[in-house]
Amino acid sequence: MKAAVWYGKKDIRIEEVPDKPIKGNEVKVKVAWAGICGSDLHEYQEGPVFIPTDANDPLTDEKAPLTMGHEFSGIVHEVGAKVTTAQVGDRVTVNPTLTYGDKREELDPYDGFSFIGLHGDGGFTTYANVPEDNVYQLPETLTLQDGALTEPTAVAVEAVKKADMQFGDKVAVFGAGPIGLLTAVAARAAGATDIIVLDLSDARLEKAKQLGATHVINSGEMDPIKTIGQIAPEGVDVAFEVAGVAPTFKQAIEVTKGLGKMMIVSIFAQPIEWNPIQLTNTGVNVDSTIAYTPTTFKQTVDLMGSGQLKLEGIITDHIQLENIVENGFEALTNDKSQAKILVELTGDSE
Amino acid sequence: MKAAVWYGKKDIRIEEVPDKPIKGNEVKVKVAWAGICGSDLHEYQEGPVFIPTDANDPLTDEKAPLTMGHEFSGIVHEVGAKVTTAQVGDRVTVNPTLTYGDKREELDPYDGFSFIGLHGDGGFTTYANVPEDNVYQLPETLTLQDGALTEPTAVAVEAVKKADMQFGDKVAVFGAGPIGLLTAVAARAAGATDIIVLDLSDARLEKAKQLGATHVINSGEMDPIKTIGQIAPEGVDVAFEVAGVAPTFKQAIEVTKGLGKMMIVSIFAQPIEWNPIQLTNTGVNVDSTIAYTPTTFKQTVDLMGSGQLKLEGIITDHIQLENIVENGFEALTNDKSQAKILVELTGDSE
Repeated sequence: MKAAVWYGKKDIRIEEVPDKPIKGNEVKVKVAWAGICGSDLHEYQEGPVFIPTDANDPLTDEKAPLTMGHEFSGIVHEVGAKVTTAQVGDRVTVNPTLTYGDKREELDPYDGFSFIGLHGDGGFTTYANVPEDNVYQLPETLTLQDGALTEPTAVAVEAVKKADMQFGDKVAVFGAGPIGLLTAVAARAAGATDIIVLDLSDARLEKAKQLGATHVINSGEMDPIKTIGQIAPEGVDVAFEVAGVAPTFKQAIEVTKGLGKMMIVSIFAQPIEWNPIQLTNTGVNVDSTIAYTPTTFKQTVDLMGSGQLKLEGIITDHIQLENIVENGFEALTNDKSQAKILVELTGDSE
Repeated sequence: MKAAVWYGKKDIRIEEVPDKPIKGNEVKVKVAWAGICGSDLHEYQEGPVFIPTDANDPLTDEKAPLTMGHEFSGIVHEVGAKVTTAQVGDRVTVNPTLTYGDKREELDPYDGFSFIGLHGDGGFTTYANVPEDNVYQLPETLTLQDGALTEPTAVAVEAVKKADMQFGDKVAVFGAGPIGLLTAVAARAAGATDIIVLDLSDARLEKAKQLGATHVINSGEMDPIKTIGQIAPEGVDVAFEVAGVAPTFKQAIEVTKGLGKMMIVSIFAQPIEWNPIQLTNTGVNVDSTIAYTPTTFKQTVDLMGSGQLKLEGIITDHIQLENIVENGFEALTNDKSQAKILVELTGDSE
């Protein structure tokens, strides 16, 4: 079967890989659709970031070269001997997070985690082997394309949950890439009133409006602090930092109300220069989130299934595996109007 | 009357100042004892930090030169026409914090605050005029010297309260200056089990032991991360950053358990270089505290009065006003074995 295999920075190859036998606790998913994630892009542009290259990953026992892709859906094609819940033919989405599982779920990822499709073979291929616990049935209301969106959406749902955002709160979202857009969607679904999205790209801000932002601010054209000050004179209740750079880190604290919450959702690639007295002066609490709990993943599937999380418009292109580098990784690098690009594997054929 | 008056950096003069008439809502306190605070020291070494020099402070309507001193106790000598609770002869301690008072008390300081003794005339003199709401009766169990310790102790109590430290928690305190020492005392009074205090000075660490630290670590001699890892393998529940520099900021996050709390108590004078991914990787929540609420100040007086906050040993010297520069500010600058130095004004004469 064909797969998109990461060999190194700027070196992703479409090549033939073996269809590996499943283990007793695994199911084999015939992949329908798989999204390209920002972390996939980082691996392409400047990797390895997460991908193990020297030693095998402790949870997957694999290392590069490996098949990428961790946002995917499909049909259960085969089940392992010990599998009790999944059945052949099930329409499923995959939670790609692997942990040691010996802490309570909120704490578990901080004890070490790996991702199917980053630390081990993933979904940019025809068949992917996944532990039974990592597949979730798709409700009838969701398509297989929707199923490829659950993973990044779960990141946004976790961020809103962990921020203790309250019904009626005002929020600001710094960064309108896919996770920023999904955070705005999640905040709206959780009942935020003012949802202010900031970015440097008008194309992305237009998308943010379509997805439910009540205000958009181009930070290159308008002063974020002053503009938010007009919308929320006391400051926003929660600011989500989804850009991962020093200016937005500081702005996100600055626009938050006294004793409010600044939630880091992004992955900072570089250190920043910053004076912690900004917290002392404002009382703002800084928290962060990474991935999601299994509970949040299930809630995300349910909230998408019930129509409360409305993602229409987030998918900006459908591409074929053969063209994943040019139409996927390069398109995401060069075209800011792209949000989520889905790779068609077996598509909606079943 | 004589006073210690701040004119500028390294320029504190003992000189005659007028005994100003009180306003209707004020009481005149005959000052018994006044402590020298770390922020006083900063004003001496590198000020002005808080002291207004150009325009009058909006809350005190005063500016430099002004009488310093914001940790003081004394006897009520005269009461204003509108004063209803304080009486002449009352033994009192002073909460020096002035706010606009138009928010709930937790939020109030972030809307702007000023300090009696930093933003306006304070307690390094014979008589200090203080709003009635800012004086608190001393219980019979507390001496006037104890009364000069309530203010810095309230800072520590607020830090422990805001950190949501739980009975039985393990804590680390980075920095064993007076506020670090008092934070250890407050953590012990709140029921922490392991109380690990870190500093570069053995003299300060010895003092920390006397005041209730269960473990002390000289960070210059032992690796803080490894050493705390032996005491608390999962990490401490709460780390208090009371040193205000980049290494302790990062260490305090590093030694905290997943999803634990890092509480900034210090005032950072300089920006730090730091990668916020440290929070993403650990799940540690970063919060900060400044000063205290009136409720916390009252609780601090009560907890000192009941003997739950035991401060024996924190006072390392008693000096006279005439010698405040040499025996106070210079001693604190040069002698790390000094913790809290009290200036005797009228002392225990009444």
